[in-house]
Amino acid sequence: MARKIKKSRFFFEENFIETIGEVSQNKYKPLKNNEKLKYLGKKISRIDGYDKASGTAVFTFDIDLPGITYAKTLRSPYANAKIKNIDDSKARKLKGVYEIIHYKNAPKIKWYYGSSFLFDQHVRYEGDEVACVVADSEELAEKAIGLISVEYEILPHATRAEEAMRNKVKIHKSGNIVRGKPGTYERGDINKGFEEADLVFEDEFSTEVAIHNPTEVHCSVVNWEGDKLIVWDSTQAVFGVRNSLAQSLGIPESNIRVIKKYMGGGFGSKLEAGKYTVMAALLAQKIGKPVKIALDRRENNLAVGNRPDSVQKLKGGVKSDGTLTALSHYSYSSVGAYPAGGGCSWPLRTMYKCPNVKVEEYSVYTNTGRGRPFRAPGHVQGIFALDSFMDELAEKIGMDPLEFRLKNYTKIDQVSGRPYSTKLLKECYKKGAKKIDWNKRNKIPGSGKGYLKRGIGMASQIWWGGGGPPAYVTLKLNQDGSVNILAGTQDLGTGTYTFIAQVAAEILEIPIENIDVTIGDTDVVPYGPGSGGSTTAPSIAPAVRDAAEQMKKKLFSGAAAILNVEQNEINYNSGKFYSKKDKKELIGINKIIRKMHERVLVTTGAREANNDNYMVQSFGAQFAEVEVDTLIGNVKVLKIVAAHDIGRTLNRQTLENQFHGGILQGLGFALMEEQIVDEYTGKILNANMHDYKMPTIYDVPEIEVVIVSEGDKIANNMGVKGIGEPAIIPTAGAIANAVYNAIGVRIKSLPLTPDKIIDSLYS
Amino acid sequence: MARKIKKSRFFFEENFIETIGEVSQNKYKPLKNNEKLKYLGKKISRIDGYDKASGTAVFTFDIDLPGITYAKTLRSPYANAKIKNIDDSKARKLKGVYEIIHYKNAPKIKWYYGSSFLFDQHVRYEGDEVACVVADSEELAEKAIGLISVEYEILPHATRAEEAMRNKVKIHKSGNIVRGKPGTYERGDINKGFEEADLVFEDEFSTEVAIHNPTEVHCSVVNWEGDKLIVWDSTQAVFGVRNSLAQSLGIPESNIRVIKKYMGGGFGSKLEAGKYTVMAALLAQKIGKPVKIALDRRENNLAVGNRPDSVQKLKGGVKSDGTLTALSHYSYSSVGAYPAGGGCSWPLRTMYKCPNVKVEEYSVYTNTGRGRPFRAPGHVQGIFALDSFMDELAEKIGMDPLEFRLKNYTKIDQVSGRPYSTKLLKECYKKGAKKIDWNKRNKIPGSGKGYLKRGIGMASQIWWGGGGPPAYVTLKLNQDGSVNILAGTQDLGTGTYTFIAQVAAEILEIPIENIDVTIGDTDVVPYGPGSGGSTTAPSIAPAVRDAAEQMKKKLFSGAAAILNVEQNEINYNSGKFYSKKDKKELIGINKIIRKMHERVLVTTGAREANNDNYMVQSFGAQFAEVEVDTLIGNVKVLKIVAAHDIGRTLNRQTLENQFHGGILQGLGFALMEEQIVDEYTGKILNANMHDYKMPTIYDVPEIEVVIVSEGDKIANNMGVKGIGEPAIIPTAGAIANAVYNAIGVRIKSLPLTPDKIIDSLYS
Repeated sequence: MARKIKKSRFFFEENFIETIGEVSQNKYKPLKNNEKLKYLGKKISRIDGYDKASGTAVFTFDIDLPGITYAKTLRSPYANAKIKNIDDSKARKLKGVYEIIHYKNAPKIKWYYGSSFLFDQHVRYEGDEVACVVADSEELAEKAIGLISVEYEILPHATRAEEAMRNKVKIHKSGNIVRGKPGTYERGDINKGFEEADLVFEDEFSTEVAIHNPTEVHCSVVNWEGDKLIVWDSTQAVFGVRNSLAQSLGIPESNIRVIKKYMGGGFGSKLEAGKYTVMAALLAQKIGKPVKIALDRRENNLAVGNRPDSVQKLKGGVKSDGTLTALSHYSYSSVGAYPAGGGCSWPLRTMYKCPNVKVEEYSVYTNTGRGRPFRAPGHVQGIFALDSFMDELAEKIGMDPLEFRLKNYTKIDQVSGRPYSTKLLKECYKKGAKKIDWNKRNKIPGSGKGYLKRGIGMASQIWWGGGGPPAYVTLKLNQDGSVNILAGTQDLGTGTYTFIAQVAAEILEIPIENIDVTIGDTDVVPYGPGSGGSTTAPSIAPAVRDAAEQMKKKLFSGAAAILNVEQNEINYNSGKFYSKKDKKELIGINKIIRKMHERVLVTTGAREANNDNYMVQSFGAQFAEVEVDTLIGNVKVLKIVAAHDIGRTLNRQTLENQFHGGILQGLGFALMEEQIVDEYTGKILNANMHDYKMPTIYDVPEIEVVIVSEGDKIANNMGVKGIGEPAIIPTAGAIANAVYNAIGVRIKSLPLTPDKIIDSLYS
Repeated sequence: MARKIKKSRFFFEENFIETIGEVSQNKYKPLKNNEKLKYLGKKISRIDGYDKASGTAVFTFDIDLPGITYAKTLRSPYANAKIKNIDDSKARKLKGVYEIIHYKNAPKIKWYYGSSFLFDQHVRYEGDEVACVVADSEELAEKAIGLISVEYEILPHATRAEEAMRNKVKIHKSGNIVRGKPGTYERGDINKGFEEADLVFEDEFSTEVAIHNPTEVHCSVVNWEGDKLIVWDSTQAVFGVRNSLAQSLGIPESNIRVIKKYMGGGFGSKLEAGKYTVMAALLAQKIGKPVKIALDRRENNLAVGNRPDSVQKLKGGVKSDGTLTALSHYSYSSVGAYPAGGGCSWPLRTMYKCPNVKVEEYSVYTNTGRGRPFRAPGHVQGIFALDSFMDELAEKIGMDPLEFRLKNYTKIDQVSGRPYSTKLLKECYKKGAKKIDWNKRNKIPGSGKGYLKRGIGMASQIWWGGGGPPAYVTLKLNQDGSVNILAGTQDLGTGTYTFIAQVAAEILEIPIENIDVTIGDTDVVPYGPGSGGSTTAPSIAPAVRDAAEQMKKKLFSGAAAILNVEQNEINYNSGKFYSKKDKKELIGINKIIRKMHERVLVTTGAREANNDNYMVQSFGAQFAEVEVDTLIGNVKVLKIVAAHDIGRTLNRQTLENQFHGGILQGLGFALMEEQIVDEYTGKILNANMHDYKMPTIYDVPEIEVVIVSEGDKIANNMGVKGIGEPAIIPTAGAIANAVYNAIGVRIKSLPLTPDKIIDSLYS
């Protein structure tokens, strides 16, 4: 148990924190360091690797059922319009078309927090759902869609936040600011802060809309078995989908089974049931056949979410010794046609020590696809602006950017006042700087010789990541010593199956080949949270440990009873018990289970409660080295050093995979990704993977991942924090700062496309 | 907790037993009587009724997978032969044939307790497996089988036990008596018993081989996903199949998933993996495709088991007042070509009070299909002989058969000396006799007028049936108050899904529509036993109750914590808590779960330990009224009254269904079912449903089911005992006694076919 600590006492009492590594609230002792363990921290190949590499893995997209039918969606071609009438009679006459639903014949199901319906007569962006057809094939369904005639009344549209904020175009009756007002935050006295400063500076940054683009498109296969709805869904949250389906369809959660075995990636847009899933469920019910609905790439680009753009105005006050006295953040983001959050100020509130902070941020409706959480929502945009701004401030007062950050380092969460469980960011700065050779950077930005100019930059990272309850795991130990695990989670493709097996193998000392993991099935796994917010590993791994430790306890008590000895007279080692005295083998799992008159031993583990006296966050810094071709404006990222404090490494292989993926996604965000809207027609010009530029293998830099922690003893019984989001957060900021260091001109608007580089250099 | 009782104290102290109804070892109070409950004991339609009635239910036989292939088996046409060679080259050339396995190329997997192999060069009965072909279709596979040439050395055969016991035909090297010796049992002093008797009498009875013939044939669909084997199997024991597959294939149990959602009946022949499942698994692994293998009706009749025949010689000693002094039982049964048990003496050991008993029973190898457990194995044959014999003894000493049985009634298990938990057989006799109008029977057998002669007879029933641990159930209570249950069991088609939902609905006071049940999937349900021996309901229902009671406890403590009241200040009623004081509604499930910061509450229930101070058995008596057409020898069963003590009725509807099924199967056994073997060729002459006579709808008598118990308070926390086997046990005996009562001639050999009736009447 943690020592009971009054929160107030620690507000700004930083020194105390050095000792908290000793305190733990968990009933289990911290594990040994990874090098003393057999499975944890090692490069373990995925247990689902064969399935994936051999092509036998069945993703939702691959699900095929006897008698399956296919649904496709008719979407609005207009950015803002009212549907006056739909005539589907021609489409219905097409042989092989089973059913068509739209506003005239479908139930009026509320959508987007009640701001719209499954089928709304007011369509508010190009891609908004108008009708859904189910037929014998996708081709037939597409053909039928072409035969539906829709009468639209075209309305004026606003596709950028600036335009929408003028409120001339009516997107929602309530006006175009989400919730009618900005999000705000304030601490200290911002004016006093600026007064205390030796230097006050302000600047503006902007980022563009980015598309999630997981490899596997959004898709569902649905089938009714009587009044039970079976849904295979490419989702990050099987229980989340079940819950939203139950509400949409008005049926009990117990009558819905959501299954997701493998997924080709999910970055925040797959956290709840999509309209497509509900439409497929309605159609399947009507026609009495299974229905598959898979969005094509264009639909994915238009209609399932994106990272909102941002315009961020930062103002900072700093003393000449580098002490931050005040930070303010004014921003607005276009979140698309339906309620979503576009805030990106969080890093500014917590990344650095600053007593006086003020935030005002507007989420603005526009006639574009809706914003959705996207890998570290807000933080990616926010850190780009904040850490660019920090570099600017540092330069203004003549300080090294790293030194400036260390000057404003904090071990206390600036918002809650709670101490961090652990924070090894200093280590990250130190190791990262060494690996990138920080001293090699241009002392005078842009001072390199030749047209290929190199530069080095860095940015910091903060993110939640300690996970928490509720999360449950059932462990079944079979008589032959093999194990089946049912865990309340699902895999995004990041290695969840494997770390679950690793934890159980480590604790139970059972070969990992003998451990089978089932996740992603609401009917069969105990409850666990959606896989978002980097919560999966820190929520589930401790629950696996709990289940495995309980199982070991059962084996101990069973063995002691059978052998008629005290538990402390025997040792457990890899499935067998030995006498402590003479090291003789006494009894194995098989015999224990049989003698206990059991066949399969079952335990249920739970994620323990968090220790609310502490704030658990992950930290890190990424260092980028870039080469800018100043003739054509191209930026090549040569190297990224990612140094992070993410607690214990569960699997060095999948950890690196996650970092590679996050960094590459951050690189795309920094250099090329942006949704381009034609303001005049309201149409998206690059809703495909050819025109929407993403990094390819050609763009992959050298990546070095440095993990500085052996485990956060307070975070949870495994000492683990999530890594999905930390990986991407600082990348764009580090690249932008490196580009500035290379060319000596700061471009404050992402992506850093060649035209912007050339413009900034030669205009 | 039960009072601790020394076993010896109760040996023959019958009077004590009257009070044991008050004693319970369970942590939960006995439930109220059924009439005071909402779901239990009622006629509740099956929750899987829609699926079944609409034809949408997917049975193993219906499983279809993309790319599925089909396997068929080449079987020996000879009763005893050695395979000298197999040439499959022609068959392999057939387009669409993927693979063929047989003794030459398949792994040497031990089978039948090591007495043979998966593919053995010595084939020992018509139907023994020789090779297995997988192809694009069943037709193609059949065609390929026709192209395989097998060189046999035909050996002499023995198809009847009498012949095999001579040991001239070598079926196994060890000789033709299973285990080389008879099963024996003895208590008291048999000779002394006969000496004490006023009358000693002996007689011989026989029964024939009967075929299980479930509606759904034996079948499996197997698919390898990497090194994980997925098996859909028409089985009574998903964990049993998993275990036997793991042993046969030499892989961990955790790498095998056995699934069985719905099944078209299983009567004991589906308790373990069949050769067909292993062959399909081997083939699927070789060809990298899913394989379906479904035995046709002929294969089912030949190769998956049967009820062994029996020849039973009974000898009894009785005093003139009706007291049994001695019973002996000598029997032999042909159990087919591989080890199986054919014993049928158990009823004689336990049904009636008798101090001196001796048993000697031989299981004999023959060159026929192997015996397997078949609904009340041994008891069906045994009670026919015993209760026929009891009627004979009663007649000899001039006593009413019922009175004679009451004279030898016991409340103490005659073998273990333990008292029965409850035994309400007297009630069964009383109520059954009243319902059939026992006094209407012919005082002088055969004395009825006319050629259509009616008669009334009865027989008793005893069977295990209290179930026991290990059996587990996981219960998940969702935020919307709906429930998902995972129970360690599987459904044979008898209503298991429904009673599980009923128990949870009753205890949690939640509408049964909101309860979803998952069973029959080794990867996802906690452990539970195979569904055989009438153990399912008494093992699983108490575990469901335990899980539900734990859940209610969680809700109570959650509600009390949130409301800040003592638990005894609040009442629970149908998902909501009320103030005891003013009956005001305080809080519901949804809010409790949210306030507990949970989403789904999970509990795991277990079947409590049995109270070993008692013997739990089910009891009953069936009364038959028959009409014999003495001109053509046809027996028509007019009515069966089934009066049983099976503890609490869970579902009156499915209970009646079970009794109807059991009685009809018993009627078939009594009147028409028998496998006919041509002794000269060793071939089965009626391996199909046309020539193998079974009852049809035309044969269904009026059936009245009388349940005398409201629950066995000692058996388990639900007071329930199994009913699958009790239903069939006394039927044949009752019918045989009724036929004797009708025609005055006793036919001691089942089935009572017209030819035997005519022979007995006119020869």
